[in-house]
Amino acid sequence: MRPTSRELAEALGARLIGDGHVEVTGVASISSASASDVVFVEEQKNIAAALESQAAAIIAGDFAGGAKSSKALIITSSPRLAFARAAAMLGDSRLQGCGIHSTAFVHASAKLGQAVSIDAHVSVGEGAQIGDHTSISAGSVIGAQVTIGNSSWILPNVIIYPGTQIGNRVIIHGGAVLGSDGFGYVRDTASGRYEKFPQIGKLVIEDDVEIGANTTIDRGALEVTHIGRGTKIDNLVHIGHNCQIGENVIIAAQAGFSGSITVEDNAVIGGQVGVGEHARIQEGVMLGGQAGVLPKKILRGKGVAFWGTPAKPLREYLKSLAALARLGKKEV
Amino acid sequence: MRPTSRELAEALGARLIGDGHVEVTGVASISSASASDVVFVEEQKNIAAALESQAAAIIAGDFAGGAKSSKALIITSSPRLAFARAAAMLGDSRLQGCGIHSTAFVHASAKLGQAVSIDAHVSVGEGAQIGDHTSISAGSVIGAQVTIGNSSWILPNVIIYPGTQIGNRVIIHGGAVLGSDGFGYVRDTASGRYEKFPQIGKLVIEDDVEIGANTTIDRGALEVTHIGRGTKIDNLVHIGHNCQIGENVIIAAQAGFSGSITVEDNAVIGGQVGVGEHARIQEGVMLGGQAGVLPKKILRGKGVAFWGTPAKPLREYLKSLAALARLGKKEV
Amino acid sequence: MRPTSRELAEALGARLIGDGHVEVTGVASISSASASDVVFVEEQKNIAAALESQAAAIIAGDFAGGAKSSKALIITSSPRLAFARAAAMLGDSRLQGCGIHSTAFVHASAKLGQAVSIDAHVSVGEGAQIGDHTSISAGSVIGAQVTIGNSSWILPNVIIYPGTQIGNRVIIHGGAVLGSDGFGYVRDTASGRYEKFPQIGKLVIEDDVEIGANTTIDRGALEVTHIGRGTKIDNLVHIGHNCQIGENVIIAAQAGFSGSITVEDNAVIGGQVGVGEHARIQEGVMLGGQAGVLPKKILRGKGVAFWGTPAKPLREYLKSLAALARLGKKEV
Repeated sequence: MRPTSRELAEALGARLIGDGHVEVTGVASISSASASDVVFVEEQKNIAAALESQAAAIIAGDFAGGAKSSKALIITSSPRLAFARAAAMLGDSRLQGCGIHSTAFVHASAKLGQAVSIDAHVSVGEGAQIGDHTSISAGSVIGAQVTIGNSSWILPNVIIYPGTQIGNRVIIHGGAVLGSDGFGYVRDTASGRYEKFPQIGKLVIEDDVEIGANTTIDRGALEVTHIGRGTKIDNLVHIGHNCQIGENVIIAAQAGFSGSITVEDNAVIGGQVGVGEHARIQEGVMLGGQAGVLPKKILRGKGVAFWGTPAKPLREYLKSLAALARLGKKEV
Repeated sequence: MRPTSRELAEALGARLIGDGHVEVTGVASISSASASDVVFVEEQKNIAAALESQAAAIIAGDFAGGAKSSKALIITSSPRLAFARAAAMLGDSRLQGCGIHSTAFVHASAKLGQAVSIDAHVSVGEGAQIGDHTSISAGSVIGAQVTIGNSSWILPNVIIYPGTQIGNRVIIHGGAVLGSDGFGYVRDTASGRYEKFPQIGKLVIEDDVEIGANTTIDRGALEVTHIGRGTKIDNLVHIGHNCQIGENVIIAAQAGFSGSITVEDNAVIGGQVGVGEHARIQEGVMLGGQAGVLPKKILRGKGVAFWGTPAKPLREYLKSLAALARLGKKEV
Repeated sequence: MRPTSRELAEALGARLIGDGHVEVTGVASISSASASDVVFVEEQKNIAAALESQAAAIIAGDFAGGAKSSKALIITSSPRLAFARAAAMLGDSRLQGCGIHSTAFVHASAKLGQAVSIDAHVSVGEGAQIGDHTSISAGSVIGAQVTIGNSSWILPNVIIYPGTQIGNRVIIHGGAVLGSDGFGYVRDTASGRYEKFPQIGKLVIEDDVEIGANTTIDRGALEVTHIGRGTKIDNLVHIGHNCQIGENVIIAAQAGFSGSITVEDNAVIGGQVGVGEHARIQEGVMLGGQAGVLPKKILRGKGVAFWGTPAKPLREYLKSLAALARLGKKEV
């Protein structure tokens, strides 16, 4: 898609000032923009740099409405959001189906939709189903009976265990492992040995989820691990068996969830957070980086921030930290 | 294997009540059981739901001995353990040798046992040896001179560096990296540059070990990194060079061990625990989630729990936390 | 290379005592040395064991200058550094170009240098450039327009996203993911949905960097993520978009950096450290294991150690810990 600046402004529901005919082909930062790129400015102080840049068009807030420029100005109350949407519209060619690479192995019983792309050394197992316009990058392994919806994008060397269900417009980054066995054993007290508890449940990932590189999400033991619509998960995150993660949840890198945890919609989980089994993070709770939540604990409060291990309401925890710092200083 | 309920009860050393002729083909949860599944019940309060389920048979504790039902009741003092064993007996077909996939590359000098399965795009290096009934899943890379025992299961895209030795009935989940170089450098104080210390030792993994997805275990620098029999390691764990991990050790997700650490038999290591170099975790010690152990520290005591950073005996640490919380509350 | 002990000593700038004619073919530990290996001794107390070993030659400090032995003694003020360099000189054959494996896929437009090795099931994308004597191990995926310098070594199943630039003598361990999308979204407050912010910048890795197994480094959002010359990164580390990591930085396993962080030259980052966005770790700062640095925080001081969350100067933090321990003991 190569819209004019006017077409782009209209598609974004924004107001156009200046040149409406310049063609826009991509997004960029102010410093790296070329003459057909659109850039964005959120603060008045940066508008001058944008005007001096090579960019064809500038997405900016109302503060830029009076700027005098030959460039196209696209005025909106949410420049960052409009910029993100412009990027999605201008898109890239990566999701154009390019067929099945000659080195890929696709089981005869697998069902592929239209315009599917299967890259080099991919393996697609028995009975797998891959929806229209979905792209599977080099080296990924799609297990038997896996289903993937439309317009999803599996990056290289991703591993999807058998039976996993993945929705539409899902992005899975390189090396992620989805649907692996959970960590469950029963100890034989006579011999002291651990015997494997069956890990035969499923993993279901809803639409519009994005999962980071080398993240691992285990299947349910007997039931289902579930990742809700629109949830975004960063790199190297671990989600254990039977977890129920809600919609529009944000999980930063290296956070870890042991088994049977519930995270409700709109929660925000910081990096390296650890959550114990059967805990519940209620709707809209925010957990600061490295916080730890004990097993079975319930954290509640929309927009309430928790921090520390064991996690406390932020204000309370900060008071403890301050008291501790003072104590330390008293010592000789 | 498709035993009758009576055959299953006998194999489990359990007592059968009711229908001994129903055929059992799989395990399931109570809510998802079909008419040929066996389920299990650990608590009296759940027996009613099990009796109302579709399940063919119920593994339960003595409390269920008086239940009136047309279903097969398999009575044992350890229902969870019996259920785990039933699952293992009923098994699945994944370890049936299916031959060598046409897209796999197996070096001419590699030695394969009987009924070995080598899936798509696997690479097996020079002089590697793979035992009977072992299965190597798609995309895994088995380095030169690697040895793997019998009935082991290597999931997709696993990386096993040259010379690594793996025992029998070992399970390695997707994306795990075994035998990678340790993190060792010598600083040239003149230039300030770090030069690589040789990482030419070995990694040995004993029988019945299970290793989680995307976990990494480094080879010894000059000697051997060793993982003892029956130890279970979760996802995204890091084990550094020269570590000696004992038997029947449990290591939860995202725990990390730097170099030359000893963990003795039957220790239990929580998620996101970090252990410094040359530390020793003695037999049966338990470390709570996110605990941190300083370099060279020795933790001792069978069944003694430690928590916090630096890790303290649990009771002591809880007192400190309580004191800290009180301090915080005193502040205005 | 199979030098004599005299040639090795000269190459190391060290003094030779004893047999100058014995051929040295490898390095080893004292306990595992064979009759053509060189070992090293840093402390007087270990020299006897080295003299009794099978080793052909011993690299040792000045304390060994008076030892009477038929073995070759290579005397230097830095035995460990000399040993590391000896290992590098004696090398191994892994970097000898072995050509392009028949199962690899190399795009017709890719440019390969001399003596390049491309192993089984590797995929090299459109326009990629790979320098002389660089080796790409089995299953790795080299994206379009990636450039890799000379004498670099990419271990198995590494994933390099399109456009990433990698220097000379770089080592990337198995399963690492380089140049993946950063974790950036814009929330549409009307719908509550997160929309993807473009992640179209680049990742640049300079010469002599080593990156551990399953580590992930994200590309810049619009600009560049940069890893400086000689920096060493351990396993399972996460580095977010737009981070600027200096030269000769050490980053231990499972450390995590969110976005737009600066780490200056010669910093040392412990295992499981977490650093918040836009923080700056100044030159030569040391961060203890599991330390946490708040967003936008600046830590300064060459050789100054910080610990705890939020990270404090070590002495200050230890005082707080001591006070806390005393408080805990006062409780009944």
